[in-house]
Amino acid sequence: MKEQLLELLENKEYIKLRDLLIEMNHVNIAEILEELDTNNQLVIFRILPKDTAVLVFSYLSTDTQEAIIHAITDKEVKTLIDELYFDDMIDLLEEMPANIVKKIIRNVSEEERSLVNQFLKYPENSAGSLMTIEYVDLKRDITVKDALQKIKRIGLEKETVYTCYVIDQNRKLEGIVSLRELVVSTDDTLISDLMTTDVIYVHTNDDQEEVAKVFKKYGFLALPVVDTEKRLVGIITFDDIMKVIEEESTEDIYKMAAIVPSEETYMSSSIFHLARNRITWLLFLMISATFTGYIIRNYEATLSSQVILASFIPMLMDTAGNAGSQASTLIIRGLSLGEVKIKDIFKIIFKEFRISLIVGLILSSINLIRILIVDKTSFSIALTVSLSLYLTIVFAKVFGGMLPIIASKLKLDPAIMASPIITTIVDAISLLTYFQLASLILGI
Amino acid sequence: MKEQLLELLENKEYIKLRDLLIEMNHVNIAEILEELDTNNQLVIFRILPKDTAVLVFSYLSTDTQEAIIHAITDKEVKTLIDELYFDDMIDLLEEMPANIVKKIIRNVSEEERSLVNQFLKYPENSAGSLMTIEYVDLKRDITVKDALQKIKRIGLEKETVYTCYVIDQNRKLEGIVSLRELVVSTDDTLISDLMTTDVIYVHTNDDQEEVAKVFKKYGFLALPVVDTEKRLVGIITFDDIMKVIEEESTEDIYKMAAIVPSEETYMSSSIFHLARNRITWLLFLMISATFTGYIIRNYEATLSSQVILASFIPMLMDTAGNAGSQASTLIIRGLSLGEVKIKDIFKIIFKEFRISLIVGLILSSINLIRILIVDKTSFSIALTVSLSLYLTIVFAKVFGGMLPIIASKLKLDPAIMASPIITTIVDAISLLTYFQLASLILGI
Repeated sequence: MKEQLLELLENKEYIKLRDLLIEMNHVNIAEILEELDTNNQLVIFRILPKDTAVLVFSYLSTDTQEAIIHAITDKEVKTLIDELYFDDMIDLLEEMPANIVKKIIRNVSEEERSLVNQFLKYPENSAGSLMTIEYVDLKRDITVKDALQKIKRIGLEKETVYTCYVIDQNRKLEGIVSLRELVVSTDDTLISDLMTTDVIYVHTNDDQEEVAKVFKKYGFLALPVVDTEKRLVGIITFDDIMKVIEEESTEDIYKMAAIVPSEETYMSSSIFHLARNRITWLLFLMISATFTGYIIRNYEATLSSQVILASFIPMLMDTAGNAGSQASTLIIRGLSLGEVKIKDIFKIIFKEFRISLIVGLILSSINLIRILIVDKTSFSIALTVSLSLYLTIVFAKVFGGMLPIIASKLKLDPAIMASPIITTIVDAISLLTYFQLASLILGI
Repeated sequence: MKEQLLELLENKEYIKLRDLLIEMNHVNIAEILEELDTNNQLVIFRILPKDTAVLVFSYLSTDTQEAIIHAITDKEVKTLIDELYFDDMIDLLEEMPANIVKKIIRNVSEEERSLVNQFLKYPENSAGSLMTIEYVDLKRDITVKDALQKIKRIGLEKETVYTCYVIDQNRKLEGIVSLRELVVSTDDTLISDLMTTDVIYVHTNDDQEEVAKVFKKYGFLALPVVDTEKRLVGIITFDDIMKVIEEESTEDIYKMAAIVPSEETYMSSSIFHLARNRITWLLFLMISATFTGYIIRNYEATLSSQVILASFIPMLMDTAGNAGSQASTLIIRGLSLGEVKIKDIFKIIFKEFRISLIVGLILSSINLIRILIVDKTSFSIALTVSLSLYLTIVFAKVFGGMLPIIASKLKLDPAIMASPIITTIVDAISLLTYFQLASLILGI
């Protein structure tokens, strides 16, 4: 289809081009538009039927959106924003540079302008910043027939018609009714008899992570957002939540790798932006690791008399770090999926303790045999290394399992207690254990 | 509500209890059921209206589902599985122990049994294993009025009625039409005039990760699944995909922490299961780190003459590991979100190279000053450490950015090229650089 489209564009066969475009999915059109130059983007954008053009527009990248708004007339801007869903318009305003925002704002109708200002004030990543105002509201005393007629009249302009919201004269949320229920019911059924009154809703200031949890728990298509007086102010639809679920995971993954999270993609970020997001943690962890170095300095005498001890340091440090980060990763993820709770802390400590006994026993036995056979050191050195390994693994697992819960209890983000921090702490402990045991067992 | 429910249950006020339950959301009922003993679970399960009971059942944990099926009569099992959505029944069969599966299977109707067998054969995590057969299909030559009447008749039994599928006499998928389009159109419109023919679909054997990508890209409510001859065999709905999106992220996170992914939650896994999922990688990485130890042994002479060099090993190893895993994490996540492509490899190498020059310069300068002022070593030792740090950071970043792409190119999972592997490789390189520079600069 793409080749055909490009050919028609090349030959300026605009009528055929329009017929082709009408058949295509708007996401696919947006994808092709991204690859064209601004002139051709405009040609296609203007050929498209108005409602498709708006849908395509909302799927374009910020850069392309900017280029188009920059190029089109004020009248076209007005048509575009009149047709855009409210949440898409707010997103647009948040992402465009000042001159483009100006061009948009002067084409927003008087009555919408105060609403726009109100929406722009919702905190980033709050339910308010995700919601849209294009929903179907119904009154409780109308019939199914009336409701269906209302949907027939206004349904095309709404972001979803599949869940309708029943509100009283003060816009207080009284219930919800699905289009499915409307369609399978008899014409004269009253909405009040059909609606569900045990409505699950969120507040404008709720964090998007909480909103995503509600969606996942109940499998909703859309969720009503209310203000402090339970008045309906907007709805959030599942497609926006899919993005949130992914964003939240990405954020956790970044934090776990000691990167400051960013909403920009890797490819679109500048090298200074990327460097800045990495350096804070690297610097902190570098300074922390310096203290581990002091442990080695403290045992310089031990090390001088048995330099071979130094050759086991990387193995000890890496294994301890990996063992600890396995535990912390499982707990951090469990916490953010809601599968692990703060009150489980003692269960987790006991669980990690038993796991570490098994894992430690296997790894240190293999290690003992390997050192004796391959490295051919004295038995006391092999024993020192293997015993240190065992103790360190036990410590790393229990500590790695415990720290994220403690962070969570202290209202800190558990994800910062991930591999890099655990590794740094566990490194120090492993070296301390190692040299202490060496002094004891080897008598140095 | 929960307290009220427990009180009514306690006092055996079953009629009031039923009235209360009818008002409640089924997910919330399931949540409360989980906390009751099997007897009370059964009481509530039997009080619930049939359709609610089935909905509640599908939200219960595997253990509770097993207990209930174990306790109820064959006749009740039959009613239950007749009402369960097909995909939920298949999930159930896949998770129950043999005796429960037997009890279920003998209550499946003759005509459904072969279908059940066919569904059980779809590979795990394929589109086929996610789909359900409860969809609305329409013929192209009927009118909107006929379609709406069909939905009114069968709509309650279907998993979704919001997207309807137009098929020909051989069940080949011809188009889709949304309930919104039906509701806003005039009664005598033909389905063929209303339907979208550019249908996006997946095949039964497509991986769930691919299916999730399609959902995220287009924001669909449901997606048709076809066989090799484009015959419609089922649909996948967005609520199942939300779980997939999260599962896929969890899987990546586990792999990045060197844990074998598991579908069981942390709290419900046995310690042997958890130990097994961790030990493979720990063992592999322990052996690999041993080789890093050999590098130290090779430079035993260097180390003996300047034991202080050993004290910088932890800082060098940790910083290099962290720098590398930052880069690899960003690329791994970018690849799985589709934001980074294999063809970007040279852009990434160049980008990481420039980032590492900045990050390396800042970290090694701070390090140089710190060693001179705090540790008060000779300038040549401070220079050796700082220069090694710089070179190692450059190597770690470029290598960390490159390896996941190479893995992806080789059709390996990029997530295995995460922190633990990168750390192990980068450790070796950092020590090699360090001792080589020490020999050169310190002349030992």
